[in-house]
Amino acid sequence: MNADQECIFCRIVAGEVPADKVLDDEAGIAFLDIGPVAEGHTLLIPRKHAETLADMSEEDAAGLLRNLPRLGRAVQSATGCEGVNVLQNNGSIAGQLVPHVHFHIIPRSPGDEFHFNWPAGAYTEGRIDELAAAIREHL
Amino acid sequence: MNADQECIFCRIVAGEVPADKVLDDEAGIAFLDIGPVAEGHTLLIPRKHAETLADMSEEDAAGLLRNLPRLGRAVQSATGCEGVNVLQNNGSIAGQLVPHVHFHIIPRSPGDEFHFNWPAGAYTEGRIDELAAAIREHL
Repeated sequence: MNADQECIFCRIVAGEVPADKVLDDEAGIAFLDIGPVAEGHTLLIPRKHAETLADMSEEDAAGLLRNLPRLGRAVQSATGCEGVNVLQNNGSIAGQLVPHVHFHIIPRSPGDEFHFNWPAGAYTEGRIDELAAAIREHL
Repeated sequence: MNADQECIFCRIVAGEVPADKVLDDEAGIAFLDIGPVAEGHTLLIPRKHAETLADMSEEDAAGLLRNLPRLGRAVQSATGCEGVNVLQNNGSIAGQLVPHVHFHIIPRSPGDEFHFNWPAGAYTEGRIDELAAAIREHL
């Protein structure tokens, strides 16, 4: 395992830093965020150090994220929340604070404090096709 | 496949409604959001109808989400964005508009318009342990 000794999440994986773990398997661990945006806010992280999603292999992503449905169900059942956001931030511009991939599982309830805006735009004619072609070229 | 004939995303999967697809495999498809919050905003959805993440099996989640790293890399390369948010909303309270699981891949660039707040709180003593125990009971 390519652990990073300066990475707080690698140290939690290694058991060197305590955390309230709820799940632990060969691909990853999940534990409660100590600075929750809602009660029960949980993080799912890979065991293997990867700074962003782009640094993960397909196999590691599959192994980690197969747990996302049951983890979401458990968080929802335990907290009694009405819905859940899954949020994963890549890069400081995207709000990433710890440089080790983590999926936030955020319980949502009426009147809660976590919000995002949704500035939906529209494409000029042909622009969406150009972008789709450019993405396909990189896949 | 348990397609829902009234579901717009099932109709895109079936090819009955056009979309700018960038990826198409046995587990899911990805296509550009026609109401993008940023240029290149892409959706990754399972072929099999599931209203929320809680309705997906581990196998279906693994099959779908193994594509997330390479899709994120392709969106970032094609758009030249600085970072990426992955966001998946479950329930209308969480901002879900189409009742078929979809992972938003949102390119982030300096001065862009997509934002979320981060009202990080703190637990009173013992509360985080209670919540972790409750989540473990439901896993």
